[in-house]
Order: sequence, then C-alpha cells, then structure tokens
Amino acid sequence: MHEDSLLTLRERLRRFAREREWDRFHSPKNLSMALIAEAAELVEHFQWLTERESSALPDRKLREVETELADILIYLIRLADKLGVDLAAAAHHKIADNESKYPAAKVRGSATKYTDD
Amino acid sequence: MHEDSLLTLRERLRRFAREREWDRFHSPKNLSMALIAEAAELVEHFQWLTERESSALPDRKLREVETELADILIYLIRLADKLGVDLAAAAHHKIADNESKYPAAKVRGSATKYTDD
Amino acid sequence: MHEDSLLTLRERLRRFAREREWDRFHSPKNLSMALIAEAAELVEHFQWLTERESSALPDRKLREVETELADILIYLIRLADKLGVDLAAAAHHKIADNESKYPAAKVRGSATKYTDD
Amino acid sequence: MHEDSLLTLRERLRRFAREREWDRFHSPKNLSMALIAEAAELVEHFQWLTERESSALPDRKLREVETELADILIYLIRLADKLGVDLAAAAHHKIADNESKYPAAKVRGSATKYTDD
Repeated sequence: MHEDSLLTLRERLRRFAREREWDRFHSPKNLSMALIAEAAELVEHFQWLTERESSALPDRKLREVETELADILIYLIRLADKLGVDLAAAAHHKIADNESKYPAAKVRGSATKYTDD
Repeated sequence: MHEDSLLTLRERLRRFAREREWDRFHSPKNLSMALIAEAAELVEHFQWLTERESSALPDRKLREVETELADILIYLIRLADKLGVDLAAAAHHKIADNESKYPAAKVRGSATKYTDD
Repeated sequence: MHEDSLLTLRERLRRFAREREWDRFHSPKNLSMALIAEAAELVEHFQWLTERESSALPDRKLREVETELADILIYLIRLADKLGVDLAAAAHHKIADNESKYPAAKVRGSATKYTDD
Repeated sequence: MHEDSLLTLRERLRRFAREREWDRFHSPKNLSMALIAEAAELVEHFQWLTERESSALPDRKLREVETELADILIYLIRLADKLGVDLAAAAHHKIADNESKYPAAKVRGSATKYTDD
C-alpha cells in the first residue's frame, strides 16, 4: 500500500477515530449527513460562477476547494469502512457497469445520458 | 498502481469520458452538482432509520448503498481531476491537520468537537 | 395578503433583487445550488446530535437554525418565481396527492412508507 | 388565512401527520435529511443543463420540478413547526437584514456579494 491507496487512508482514519474514541459518533446515518454537508461547501464555491469560471479558479479558491474535496473523501472512506464496503472494488464495479451501459461507439458525441434521464 | 489506487480509478474514468466525448459536460460546477445529488441518495437511505438501524442494513439495502458510495467516489475523482487536485495527497494533508488540531490526549472521550462547533 | 403570505414574500424578494440588479445571477440552476447549500447548513447543525437532542435545541442554536430555515425559504421562493411556479398551489396539490396515496385508516400506526421505499 | 398562507399549509400538514401517527418519525434531524434529499432531486434536474436551459424547461420537466419545490416546502414547514419557528417572520427578518447589509445604492450592478464571499 502506498500514498494513493484507499486502504492506507482507511487505516489512518480508523486509527484517528480510535485514538480519540470518536467511533460512537460515526454511525452511518451521521456520517452521511457530515458527507453531504461537506459536499454542499463544495457546491457553495461554484454556485454563482459560470461553468467556465468554475474551470479556472484563482489559486486561493482552489486551495479551499481542495480542502473540501479532502473532507468529502475522508467521510466517504469512514462511511464505507463502517458499512464494511470495499470502496475501490465498488467503484470499479460501477464503472464496469457504465462501460456496458453506455458503449462508446453508440453514445459518442451524443448527450443522450444527459438529456434523457 | 493496484486495484485500490485512486490514480488507477482516475485513469479509468478519464478514458471512459474521453471515449464518449463527455468531457464537455464535466465542468467543476456541474460535477459538484452531480456529486451532491449522489450524496443525497445516500442520505435518503438513512433518513428514517435510527442510528442503530443505519449500522445494520439488510443485505439488499447495503448493496444499494454500496452503489451510491461508488457514484460519489466516481464524481469526486472526476472533479479532482478536472481541477488538477491530487486527492490522496489532499486527504493525507487534511488528516495531518486534524491530528494536530485534535490531540488524542486532550480530546479523548470528549465530544468537544461535536458539541461546540 | 398579510405577513404569512408566500406572495408577499415573493414580491419583497423580487423588489430586493431588482433594486440591486442581481437577477442575472439568479438562474434556476444557480438558485438550486444556493438552496441546497443552505439546506446543508441546516443538516450540519443536526449531524452529531441524537434525534432527541435535535428536538430540544439550546436557544442560541435554535436562533441559528431559524436563520437557515429563512434562507432556504428565500431561495425556494426565488426559484419558484423564476420558473413561474405557484408554490402554495403546488404544495396543496402535493399534499392532496399524499392524502390519497396514504389513507389514514390504512397506514395509521404503521411505518410502511418509511421502511418499504 | 387563505390559500397562499404558510399557516394554512402548516395546519394541513400537522393534521396529515397526526391522522397517520407519523409524528414520531419527524424529528428535526430526520426532517433535515428529508429536506436535503428533496433539494438534491431539484439539483439533479439542473446538473447537466446550462444556466440558460435551466430558465426554459420543457413542460414535462417543469411539472417535475414543481413537485420537487412542493416537497421542499412541505418538509421546510414541518421542520419549522417541530422547532416552534415562525417561518414567515424568520424570512421577513432575514430579508430586512439583507436589505441593510446590501444597500441598493452601494451594490447595484456589482457582483461583490457573489465574488467576494
């Protein structure tokens, strides 16, 4: 396991909560609330920007957004851990599903997924 | 890079979007909306459950929750990629900050963080 | 129209935006983001509380929650106005639907809605 | 009290919950989750649209969005009721604050609020 491993992060976060005896606050219900609260802080950064502006954030803003992304990942990993879910496996599984569901040859250049649902 | 690497997932998702020419939909603004919509589907699973029930989901429900977690991770990785953010590094950095901010010896057994803010 | 009228609030908010020339920021897309960001601030107040604690907020906290509720209503009214939706009529219509869908005699004391979906 | 009154809606919702004995599910914590889940369904409608498209929804889509707006208002009113908050008064109070904080003469035509915070 190296730096960019989800398992490494999971272990570090497990130890963090255990050492502080904070596990009892971390019910899946509560963690889902903490996660969406962080996701909203992200949304807040983008809400009055145009799409183009959101792609070219000034440096200070980008640093703040980076921290929100970290917070979301942290709660996501904690939640998956509490539920016994293998996050990386679940993501690979879902991507594989999407690869079958939206064959490149068929949907390329089209926005079907984005307009029909 | 192996199965649980965030970089492996990032590369797979990059290829997925490129092959379908879907990158133009993936502005950070739009991705932040997609991310919070997935986070809300998670919240929806837990909203009428007690905390205890949220820790002991029936198998069918757990499979659904697993898929929501995957969706959140997918959009999170895409968003970080679009912004040029190294997600794992940002998370390790944030955890390090939290380790300093909440020293175990001082906060152990206390819920200060959770009640004061 | 009196104090508790949605139309009175709508008119006051319309004037507020017009006088400041802020209408151009208020696309439905942007307003939906602002609304969910406010909803998340609400969630944040409750995320580490038990259900029981959430029903008995200390006064200072209650004042803060009250402001979040106001912010949500404000963005909701603006968004409905921008879309030409009659909010009160839509709500009465939806409640009527729910009254038919969940007849009291049938669902009373049961949590079917809350466990089955 | 008439059709567009928040109190009328509050009374109708109170009766609805009482007749079904659903009040016990309606802790402020749970209601805040239900509210944000509905807000996210709204966001989902707009996430891949441009701002301009979000202002000109096709009729079928607009009907769906209208229902989401109703759902948000319903949970908002329930939550305020459970907390003993007068929603209309809180909104008028908050608008008055904003009127002082952002004097039209000073902020007109400027996007300060939207870029500085």
